[in-house]
Amino acid sequence: MSKNSVSTAVTKLLERLFYPMPGINAAPRLQYQSLGEEMPQSTKTAIMIIGGAEDKVHGREILHSFFVRSGATDAQIAIIPSASREPAVIGERYREIFTEMGAKGIEILDIQDRAQCEDPILQSYAKSCTGVFMTGGDQLRLCGLLADTPLMEFVRQRAQRGEITLAGTSAGAAVMGHYMIAGGGSGESPNRSLVDITTGLGIIPELLVDQHFHNRNRMARLMSAIAGHPDRFGIGIDEDTCSLFEGDGLLQVIGKGTVTIIDPKELTHTNWSHIGATDPLSIGNLRIHILVHGDCFNLHKRIPIHAHFDHA
Amino acid sequence: MSKNSVSTAVTKLLERLFYPMPGINAAPRLQYQSLGEEMPQSTKTAIMIIGGAEDKVHGREILHSFFVRSGATDAQIAIIPSASREPAVIGERYREIFTEMGAKGIEILDIQDRAQCEDPILQSYAKSCTGVFMTGGDQLRLCGLLADTPLMEFVRQRAQRGEITLAGTSAGAAVMGHYMIAGGGSGESPNRSLVDITTGLGIIPELLVDQHFHNRNRMARLMSAIAGHPDRFGIGIDEDTCSLFEGDGLLQVIGKGTVTIIDPKELTHTNWSHIGATDPLSIGNLRIHILVHGDCFNLHKRIPIHAHFDHA
Repeated sequence: MSKNSVSTAVTKLLERLFYPMPGINAAPRLQYQSLGEEMPQSTKTAIMIIGGAEDKVHGREILHSFFVRSGATDAQIAIIPSASREPAVIGERYREIFTEMGAKGIEILDIQDRAQCEDPILQSYAKSCTGVFMTGGDQLRLCGLLADTPLMEFVRQRAQRGEITLAGTSAGAAVMGHYMIAGGGSGESPNRSLVDITTGLGIIPELLVDQHFHNRNRMARLMSAIAGHPDRFGIGIDEDTCSLFEGDGLLQVIGKGTVTIIDPKELTHTNWSHIGATDPLSIGNLRIHILVHGDCFNLHKRIPIHAHFDHA
Repeated sequence: MSKNSVSTAVTKLLERLFYPMPGINAAPRLQYQSLGEEMPQSTKTAIMIIGGAEDKVHGREILHSFFVRSGATDAQIAIIPSASREPAVIGERYREIFTEMGAKGIEILDIQDRAQCEDPILQSYAKSCTGVFMTGGDQLRLCGLLADTPLMEFVRQRAQRGEITLAGTSAGAAVMGHYMIAGGGSGESPNRSLVDITTGLGIIPELLVDQHFHNRNRMARLMSAIAGHPDRFGIGIDEDTCSLFEGDGLLQVIGKGTVTIIDPKELTHTNWSHIGATDPLSIGNLRIHILVHGDCFNLHKRIPIHAHFDHA
């Protein structure tokens, strides 16, 4: 993450007092800071929730952040490709990427059976690795294989304690909350049948994650999900975009697209409990933030902190 | 509009004090009132903004509301099919529907040239009719033919004074605000190039209308539009759904789908003015309401008023 969004959060909050709506007032002396600048990257461990289709060829910004936060050339990376029906292929793809970057050790934990999660060798690697990467595929398959296994418990606890960096992309992102969107549709008025909700891996329980978000037009399904679970944050992550958490309650955005926050704290009404599965949903008072690279969101204070505008 | 949402607005506000989140608390004695009930329809004139694809065959609820509010069997209806490239076909379709309902007089104002808007016969009908219906098609074509013509000025002023009922569906809905969405895309992170904005007919200037809304996944484009025009309300109307205005600042919803209100009053930030056309948009603090049949929204107070929950 850039220095803009992490280390100067307080500065930016002060700036907001002076320029509460810089985009609207369009003060000409404010200039958006180029995202192309090279800035030193934090090496702190993090939980990285990636919206799928992250760049694997060119800048590889998100994957490189994972590599750096896993220890860079000291990284011992575990790749969990179990969401995929072609785990060997997808596992090798990521192995090549992290090998090229210079990771010290890489193991593919090709779990295709829950019993493997009892394997002492796998457990030992889960205890000693510095970064875990969960690939895309089918989130129901991933949860079916990993949920409530000793292996996953090690990973979850170590990630929550900040001992490792844990990343998940696409299906690997979907599993991050206590509740998980298993599937759904688009092109309809918000309604209960538009989204299938089940239980995830509970890495950051308060989140209800959706991925490939605006790319696959999933706004209506995430709003529908939140109407039924208004004690969660809806987090919609676009492709090649990442919500990064350092354990301090601050979500940081990196990548090309947007992260959409649906905050139902002030919800005054929903008909969720009173209607049929395909009836249209009524929802009063959702608060929504669209965040881009460099923006943050404070989950405790429920406020967005936007990227730096330079004084030209 | 049903008695629930109009005449008992105060009662409902009081109810909200007692049951601030009925959908969440799910008090079992609350029951959603059937929408199928036959209730007397208001005959007051209105401006009706229809999300397209309104039912023309079965219940015809929205078109029947237009007919009743135009005077029912005393209605003198003007159909403006000018958005369409097949104005004769679409004009006849609506003529048949309103004839079947029993309208006293129906004229198709088949305007294909701005000069026709100077025609004293057409102007005379625009002055004497009781209801005007603008069909779907291309909103740019409709505005190109009608904007700032004497004919349209009669229609606009008479609608705003409550002398006639004015309805527009699809393209006929898009033109209702001062600003108009002329086109756009979906399946992308919100960005400025996702929406083309031009000038509409200014019937209800404070609205920025989008139609076929959730059906065509237009949430990102309307949010993008509002980021650039935060002094408007974003109103996204689903198909076979209508936002009805009686001139008292109350929007009422009728029909099968939802009406989405994007209220940017509390917007704290957008990068709209600082970024390139295809860069992702950052937007802080949008308030969003999803409304269904029977729900209202008070444009002055900026609060939703939700449909009645019966005490079982």
